[in-house]
Amino acid sequence: MGRLLVIGTGLIGGSFALAARRAGFFTEVAGFDHDQRAARQAQRDGIIDSIPRSIASGVSGADAILVSVPTGGIATTVADVVASQHSAKPVFDVGSVKAPILAQLRARGAIPAQFVPCHPMAGSEVQGAGGAREDLFSDRRVFITPHEHSDPEVLERVATLWRACGASVTLADAESHDRAVALTSHLPHLVAFAFMAHAGPRIDEVAQFAGPGFRDFTRISGSDAHVWRHILIDNRAAVSEELDGFMDRLEQFKLLLDGDPAALEDALAAGRQARERFLRADD
Amino acid sequence: MGRLLVIGTGLIGGSFALAARRAGFFTEVAGFDHDQRAARQAQRDGIIDSIPRSIASGVSGADAILVSVPTGGIATTVADVVASQHSAKPVFDVGSVKAPILAQLRARGAIPAQFVPCHPMAGSEVQGAGGAREDLFSDRRVFITPHEHSDPEVLERVATLWRACGASVTLADAESHDRAVALTSHLPHLVAFAFMAHAGPRIDEVAQFAGPGFRDFTRISGSDAHVWRHILIDNRAAVSEELDGFMDRLEQFKLLLDGDPAALEDALAAGRQARERFLRADD
Repeated sequence: MGRLLVIGTGLIGGSFALAARRAGFFTEVAGFDHDQRAARQAQRDGIIDSIPRSIASGVSGADAILVSVPTGGIATTVADVVASQHSAKPVFDVGSVKAPILAQLRARGAIPAQFVPCHPMAGSEVQGAGGAREDLFSDRRVFITPHEHSDPEVLERVATLWRACGASVTLADAESHDRAVALTSHLPHLVAFAFMAHAGPRIDEVAQFAGPGFRDFTRISGSDAHVWRHILIDNRAAVSEELDGFMDRLEQFKLLLDGDPAALEDALAAGRQARERFLRADD
Repeated sequence: MGRLLVIGTGLIGGSFALAARRAGFFTEVAGFDHDQRAARQAQRDGIIDSIPRSIASGVSGADAILVSVPTGGIATTVADVVASQHSAKPVFDVGSVKAPILAQLRARGAIPAQFVPCHPMAGSEVQGAGGAREDLFSDRRVFITPHEHSDPEVLERVATLWRACGASVTLADAESHDRAVALTSHLPHLVAFAFMAHAGPRIDEVAQFAGPGFRDFTRISGSDAHVWRHILIDNRAAVSEELDGFMDRLEQFKLLLDGDPAALEDALAAGRQARERFLRADD
């Protein structure tokens, strides 16, 4: 393809730049970030080759544009990119929430045909381009949520890019995607952050009592607070509903803990069985 | 030492048998389990050599006795073992809760001097001796909580056994231990079980939307429901207190989600900072 422009040179943007270049798709990667130090660090690390003066100047020579900024800024950035394009080149994002971005673009007029909404199910609690890895998307799933103006040919080109990075691509409806990830990703992150906020005041004294279970359970609480603020707020309705249901379940467990050991075991077993069903479904 | 008797041939008992034998401490391992099929399977798997007809007959020839049964049965089993002993040999357990076991033994008279209360910070969501691994305790911490009648020499022999299995040994007060693990282990397990119980009805439809974060966050919900019923009930007071504090924190996050994005980010950042402090303390 030639030249890739990455807007937002963090973990996901940096990893995509490494993976797509390794796959031979791009000979040059330009990277823009509002945090100029982050962009310069990514350049020193060899993740990007150059830093355009502005988004507009970067767009003019780009054959594909990856928008990898926090979800709250995606629609604006996509609109800015499209307004700067002389010809329609693929523009794709990596936001964890899809329907609000499409709604924001609709509110500005029609969603651009060359915009391909993407969500790679990959990440890391290591933040910034310093954590970028060319294998971050290997054997991961990437959701693409087409919209009413999607250009099928552009969509397929972006899907091909993800597959070249080692991922598998699944098409999904944006609303269904957002409801599902509220349960599988957003609620777990909120719970893990809340758990560590609860443990925080005593963490130094109890750290030696923490085993591998604690480490795995809390891993995602190491994620970027700013990124997650935007994800949780953008998917607030679905996340709140999941949180309510989960808190009701905790209340139930609390009652059983106080008075009914046999029923508590049944409730624990129901959780365990769901985990087993997940492992079978995930195979 | 010669002969080890393992009472409860599950994951922990089986793994200890494999590790201690590999370290050259025992030439023979006998294994008893109330579930006779479990004991026979452990024998077929080469984890134990023989199955005594009863605990009393197994105890008579044993140089050390590991009690690896669910916490609710530990005190009774330890008392039975000691009553069957002609001479005092080390008796040690692996229960995740320590003070209630000591209280139950005190209620039966004095705690036996040869009883060494242990808690290895190791486990797996794979259950039964089929999941046993000789490296389960490698680089793991084992807490020993001495009591008022502890024989220091016996305690040191048991500590040596654990070190031979690759673990490091830390002494702790039983009550402090129980309060700390309520936060670092028991609450996370309860929360993970409750989360999966909440997700259960929709797990098949949302499984494809689950990434590595979901997998790690929920891993401990695959643990044994019967074992965890006993742990949670035995440490009920401390677990309830932690659960109350955690639910208050979730309520706070819910309010911020509904109305204050900037304060939500601060709250998420507090969780993230606690996780970072944990990683530094855990090094």
